[in-house]
Amino acid sequence: MTIKINHIAIATNDMGAGVHFWGELMGLPLDKKRIVEDEGVEVAYYRAGDAHVELVRPIEDNGVQRFIDKRGAGIHHLCLEVDDIAATLAHLAQAGARLLNETPKQHPDGTQFAFIHPQSTGGVLIELYQLPT
Amino acid sequence: MTIKINHIAIATNDMGAGVHFWGELMGLPLDKKRIVEDEGVEVAYYRAGDAHVELVRPIEDNGVQRFIDKRGAGIHHLCLEVDDIAATLAHLAQAGARLLNETPKQHPDGTQFAFIHPQSTGGVLIELYQLPT
Repeated sequence: MTIKINHIAIATNDMGAGVHFWGELMGLPLDKKRIVEDEGVEVAYYRAGDAHVELVRPIEDNGVQRFIDKRGAGIHHLCLEVDDIAATLAHLAQAGARLLNETPKQHPDGTQFAFIHPQSTGGVLIELYQLPT
Repeated sequence: MTIKINHIAIATNDMGAGVHFWGELMGLPLDKKRIVEDEGVEVAYYRAGDAHVELVRPIEDNGVQRFIDKRGAGIHHLCLEVDDIAATLAHLAQAGARLLNETPKQHPDGTQFAFIHPQSTGGVLIELYQLPT
């Protein structure tokens, strides 16, 4: 099994400040920026090597907004790419890890994803990704 | 200028749980694990693609321990590799960013590093690295 960092997601209520810092000051290339209605967020993906910094701005009162209300803006989750997400989830479940998704969900582009609860990871919300082949 | 993620640092008071999760459950290869007396921490570096997940356990009452006391265990900082850290710091300072190190410090292996205050980055403590050539 190979594992790599796919992205770091940063929760913010100020997309303009994020765009200023990551795009203008740090000079990272913007890959895409769009509203994801289903999840109630605006996202912006900045490329950093073969990974991304993802800015996430809640556009409704959802989990990302509650995260910001509780802890302030900052890193929301770490996303790791795995080869076989179903096998990884089964392995983690068998070891007693607390999963937020017991089976993978799927993005429109075919990427499968699932979250592991911070309680089982030392305080880090971890998203797993399996990219479409 | 190219920028890539060098590592994600996770603050913890329980290195055993971190080693269990990242090493045993997720299966990431351990590159090194050691006490850094000067900084009052024990660190463990797990390889994830061409980046690392770095576990940091305070062994005295320092900034990492205060972070855990305040926010709980979890992601402490994001480290980005840059080509020219002095130029990046000068550029950030000119733009009014709050730097924790105005000039780079140096690790024994020659890596230059400096931190940017979360106030200027949308809540993320960012470390910059320039690797030795």
